[in-house]
Amino acid sequence: MYKRELKKPDGRDLILYARAPIDPAITAPAAGHAGPRSSHLRWHPLRGEWIVYAGHRQDRTFLPPPGWNPLAPTTNPDQPTEVPAGAWDVAVFENLFSALGSTEASVPEAIVDTAPAGGRCEVVVFTQDPGASLGALPLDHIELVLGVWADRTQALAARPDVACVFAFENRGVEVGATLAHPHGQIYAYPFVPPILARELALQRSHFERHGDSLLGALIAAELAADQRTIYVGPYAVAFVPVCARWAYELWIAPRRPAPALAALSELERLDLARALRIALCKLDRLWQRPMPYVLAVHQAPARGHHPYAHVHIEIYPWMRMPGRLKYLAGSEVGAGAFTADTLPEAKAAELRAVEVP
Amino acid sequence: MYKRELKKPDGRDLILYARAPIDPAITAPAAGHAGPRSSHLRWHPLRGEWIVYAGHRQDRTFLPPPGWNPLAPTTNPDQPTEVPAGAWDVAVFENLFSALGSTEASVPEAIVDTAPAGGRCEVVVFTQDPGASLGALPLDHIELVLGVWADRTQALAARPDVACVFAFENRGVEVGATLAHPHGQIYAYPFVPPILARELALQRSHFERHGDSLLGALIAAELAADQRTIYVGPYAVAFVPVCARWAYELWIAPRRPAPALAALSELERLDLARALRIALCKLDRLWQRPMPYVLAVHQAPARGHHPYAHVHIEIYPWMRMPGRLKYLAGSEVGAGAFTADTLPEAKAAELRAVEVP
Repeated sequence: MYKRELKKPDGRDLILYARAPIDPAITAPAAGHAGPRSSHLRWHPLRGEWIVYAGHRQDRTFLPPPGWNPLAPTTNPDQPTEVPAGAWDVAVFENLFSALGSTEASVPEAIVDTAPAGGRCEVVVFTQDPGASLGALPLDHIELVLGVWADRTQALAARPDVACVFAFENRGVEVGATLAHPHGQIYAYPFVPPILARELALQRSHFERHGDSLLGALIAAELAADQRTIYVGPYAVAFVPVCARWAYELWIAPRRPAPALAALSELERLDLARALRIALCKLDRLWQRPMPYVLAVHQAPARGHHPYAHVHIEIYPWMRMPGRLKYLAGSEVGAGAFTADTLPEAKAAELRAVEVP
Repeated sequence: MYKRELKKPDGRDLILYARAPIDPAITAPAAGHAGPRSSHLRWHPLRGEWIVYAGHRQDRTFLPPPGWNPLAPTTNPDQPTEVPAGAWDVAVFENLFSALGSTEASVPEAIVDTAPAGGRCEVVVFTQDPGASLGALPLDHIELVLGVWADRTQALAARPDVACVFAFENRGVEVGATLAHPHGQIYAYPFVPPILARELALQRSHFERHGDSLLGALIAAELAADQRTIYVGPYAVAFVPVCARWAYELWIAPRRPAPALAALSELERLDLARALRIALCKLDRLWQRPMPYVLAVHQAPARGHHPYAHVHIEIYPWMRMPGRLKYLAGSEVGAGAFTADTLPEAKAAELRAVEVP
């Protein structure tokens, strides 16, 4: 993996990654101008969680006019995009409309606890090709994306204002993605978000009782059941979990417990890329149309020793049938109870039948 | 409150409520035919929660053809709807496509814990008028709806297979509502759903330390701050909470802690109806268009003594600006971290300025 760290004229970081050496003459284009960020956190006493307030974000870019793609390489210096021309494969830069990383010195007071919204929001451009998709990239390019996530997670976790690094992709307008160019995001939170905190606590509790990985035990059971796996490699697996909340939910994980992507061996990371590629290709080939989804990378938090944490990727496809969205409404959003209209075994059978070259 | 309990020909309950006596000659129409329900629960080990699987629901009604409204009173006996003609104000019936209340004797085995999906899903028809909305109903009709929620909560909580009763409304196609006729739903779960369980634990913890209601303390602080309240009555309040996750989020609560709607006095319930009416009217008048929202009634669970539980209604409006939805995506759905682009004080100021007759 080759890497070049640049600075945009407005001070934001731009980091280029490639499978081959990167031309040292490449410079960062001058797109955008990062204004002040007035974010802060407030404590939600009835949910026991932090809410991030980022008032400066209300007017951010929303489906820019056709032809304007800020994530495509800059071809005309008078119309700079966020990324330069030249030979690179993956680019990372600080989000122009970052919800985290306040530039204000003070935190407003409120009738609940407040705290500084430290941290960082980054954009990960998966490829220069606006018509591609993460799953359609060559295997070694997907492996590079995993390497970029690992590299950024390590760099961001080292910051004193970061408690947890979360890489994700919102794919499709149905999920609210404002740009069609293949890209993901990284939120480096100043707290451990509730879902990841809960998962960590459950993993720890299982580890203390049984001495092994909770997800590892589930993977062993999934392999033995052989009903819901869609890829079984020497080092990684992909499967519809027995407890899927979304009809075509998929989990991709290394077979060996490791707390983060950076802790994987080269062979493990390559096989994880293979599992991820097959999972994404099957979703897009299922109905011969791009599947909208949220992809979430679960890694251990920034601080502490977490031998029970088992890095994995969860994919939540937004459709439950062709043309039918799964809506999050009263039961899910109001009570937190998911009701699935389909059985994981049936959906896994459909995905197992999809051929991927 | 007047009430008549009927049975549909397929065995489902139908209960009519009214502000005046109900004609004893009214009978239940013969719409639909409740088939077998093969629901069950599976334990999600990484989230520590039950997932409901209801495979028989995949093909349920979805935006029926124009002119066909199963929630309107039956006018032609050859085309029966779910509810009869005659003088009633609110009707409740068992959902034809219930996710809960399995009719199967056995629970399938899986590689995680499974359990019977007991419980009940009900539909609450708020009015006979398909063009009305909950907030636009007369005050004593809204009060009746609160009474219906209280009555059904008590009846369902008494069932041995119910652990928690949750009344809610999904309003608008943006929220996935499949029928435009004003209606809500009640899910009587065989478990306490995660969000309500978490809230209960936080309320109990506060009560043990401070001896008072967590929400009551927040309401007192909101009243003292006088920035985000939109209705302050003698017995009830409505406000944008200081920790709002949705731009125009509203909470409606009695000022006195009471664990459930049934524990409110008549004066309290009437004032709560007034607060709810003003909240809903302000949301619809804000941009002169019906606001899509999820409305969730938070009450104590069915079992146990919960003096710390403080009944309230939370409303999550789906729009953050005119024409702009708040999407739940990576940060919210993947990590559980909400990022708000607006400040509760600013949105409360907008709602305070909306006049409601």
